[in-house]
Amino acid sequence: METGNHTGRGLWYNGGMRVQGISYRSLWTEPPGVVCGIDQTRLPHEFTCFRWQSVADAIAGITQMQVRGAPLIGVAGAFGLALRLAEDASDVALSEAHGALLATRPTAVNLRWALDRVRDRVATLPAARRATAAWQTAVQLADADVATNAAIGRHGLALLQALAVGRAGQPVRVLTHCNAGWLATVDWGTALAPIFMGHDAGLPLHVWVDETRPRMQGLLTAWELAAHGVPHTLIADNAGGHLMQQGEVDLVLVGADRVAANGDVCNKIGTYLKALAAHDNRVPFYAAVPASTFDFSLADGGAIEIEQRPGDELAAIRGRDTAGKPASVRLVDTVTPVANPAFDVTPARLVTGLITQRGVFTPEHLASARAVLQEAA
Amino acid sequence: METGNHTGRGLWYNGGMRVQGISYRSLWTEPPGVVCGIDQTRLPHEFTCFRWQSVADAIAGITQMQVRGAPLIGVAGAFGLALRLAEDASDVALSEAHGALLATRPTAVNLRWALDRVRDRVATLPAARRATAAWQTAVQLADADVATNAAIGRHGLALLQALAVGRAGQPVRVLTHCNAGWLATVDWGTALAPIFMGHDAGLPLHVWVDETRPRMQGLLTAWELAAHGVPHTLIADNAGGHLMQQGEVDLVLVGADRVAANGDVCNKIGTYLKALAAHDNRVPFYAAVPASTFDFSLADGGAIEIEQRPGDELAAIRGRDTAGKPASVRLVDTVTPVANPAFDVTPARLVTGLITQRGVFTPEHLASARAVLQEAA
Repeated sequence: METGNHTGRGLWYNGGMRVQGISYRSLWTEPPGVVCGIDQTRLPHEFTCFRWQSVADAIAGITQMQVRGAPLIGVAGAFGLALRLAEDASDVALSEAHGALLATRPTAVNLRWALDRVRDRVATLPAARRATAAWQTAVQLADADVATNAAIGRHGLALLQALAVGRAGQPVRVLTHCNAGWLATVDWGTALAPIFMGHDAGLPLHVWVDETRPRMQGLLTAWELAAHGVPHTLIADNAGGHLMQQGEVDLVLVGADRVAANGDVCNKIGTYLKALAAHDNRVPFYAAVPASTFDFSLADGGAIEIEQRPGDELAAIRGRDTAGKPASVRLVDTVTPVANPAFDVTPARLVTGLITQRGVFTPEHLASARAVLQEAA
Repeated sequence: METGNHTGRGLWYNGGMRVQGISYRSLWTEPPGVVCGIDQTRLPHEFTCFRWQSVADAIAGITQMQVRGAPLIGVAGAFGLALRLAEDASDVALSEAHGALLATRPTAVNLRWALDRVRDRVATLPAARRATAAWQTAVQLADADVATNAAIGRHGLALLQALAVGRAGQPVRVLTHCNAGWLATVDWGTALAPIFMGHDAGLPLHVWVDETRPRMQGLLTAWELAAHGVPHTLIADNAGGHLMQQGEVDLVLVGADRVAANGDVCNKIGTYLKALAAHDNRVPFYAAVPASTFDFSLADGGAIEIEQRPGDELAAIRGRDTAGKPASVRLVDTVTPVANPAFDVTPARLVTGLITQRGVFTPEHLASARAVLQEAA
């Protein structure tokens, strides 16, 4: 897995987000058949890009969270399967790579959805045509993700505009958890798409950014918001409840990794605590999700497998040393037992609504929206 | 403020807790009139002790959190006032030092309580006798804290024993937030006192330790529990709600910095979120507090001043570098806006009970317990 500073622009790249003056998507392709992206394990302390040239690179990269965020994991998985078929287009290789990629991150349903899309597209093709078709499908999934998120952004923007009414220019104050920005997708983001669009439309906004231990994805959110010029404040995950009690939050807006048929929302660990506080303080709680995040095969969130990640994600932390160089420190010795569940499930009763590319739905109306959402997915 | 490795035993030291084979209290005195203690800004990465020889040392040490925890802050403040009176025993010096020490940490009521105790004791004495009387009062407050916490431990132990009934040897699983152990007091701790006593009595226990961002006092709790041999697991603050949903928590047990007359509990930021999750999952939520933590002058917690601490407490973090040496890394650049409220208020409706040295009281019964609690304080 080659990693280096990114010097060239992607081939099919049309990213709306700028880094150091250059527009980027979070993932792009370069000839000949290389998958490139921003290495999110290094951000915000270093900006480097990865180059995946094999399915092994993709599996390692997804597992280590070089890419992360449910929508982006799905697209990255699709490219991983395409990389495998370029090596070996047999049925056995297809099936094994599908299974290996699916096992990298068990919680987000988008990964299975995207892998199934590629598999279903190529399964009936002769082996000689599979690699190209898989690659094309992955590219289409990536482009579709951008369009989906733009639509989520427009629906969410209407919500923000409604909250702004009567505020006399005072900012709408949004609390978000984890990173559901453009880095978590191919472009735009889910929860942050309405915020980027609202800011561009001149809507006064302020974002409370949960740092999101243990992986500190809040630093990615702060990095995105700073780059786009959106006012924001970083807070400890512990602080959000207090801010809601003080009337400092108008809306909680997060992404999700899987949404069950009843509207239970599985998202980054700690989301449930914020949803409880929102409910207790009558703050609306929304999740912004593409249709591919719905898992209508699950009646509720109870059966979702919660990924248990390595304890070292808590025990050590990455930052910059006194000389400004990227460095890690250990917070606890290696004998301290650590548990690290990566997601939790917010019960539908705490969810005000789900912002999708097809509109905003309350959990109660998901059943009737199922057809339109499955069609969109 | 001299800091160095501790080599001698304290004068009036009778600590039950051992560090590297030596029994310690968190604070002790050494002749001539020096206040010594374990520097909690360095733990668990370094074990060093401070030596306060002036009120300026005490003010700086409390502000920087060399000592922390409401009960210990109170005793440390009392010694700070005694140090000042040894320099200047005038009414003006007494009044100014009382004010300056009180301003170091605005949220915990124990500090005002202890400072008032010393001031009231010496106010009517001639200047020549004030320093000695103040020192004696501070020593008495320290000794009383140890006895108080032992009593809290016994009352809490009865609660743990009740929870253990019918568990057939399976551990009672306690979740705690921040550090309310012996480091937060002179000895024993408040929330951890029942746990130490339960472990010593052969009760199977397991403690989920919230790491408690931003100051990571959970590392102090893990350090105390490891030293005492109590099974425990460190978790991100985000994880507790999920663990309660999964039925993995039997009791939430925390300390507190101030409890209002109605039972509203002000404690380390993030406590409110755990209380919400406990309530949502029918897990009992208790705060263990000495009587001096009650502030009956406040009808409820709404008027408690919430300390806003420096953003750098989030923006930088201390650990050990790859060579095992204590080191800090910055997590965010200096231009990222950071907010750092240090406490929150858990409404009484979420509080199952308050464990004091005089027994366990529900919020509803605090009014009738007021006399016995004020007498004990």
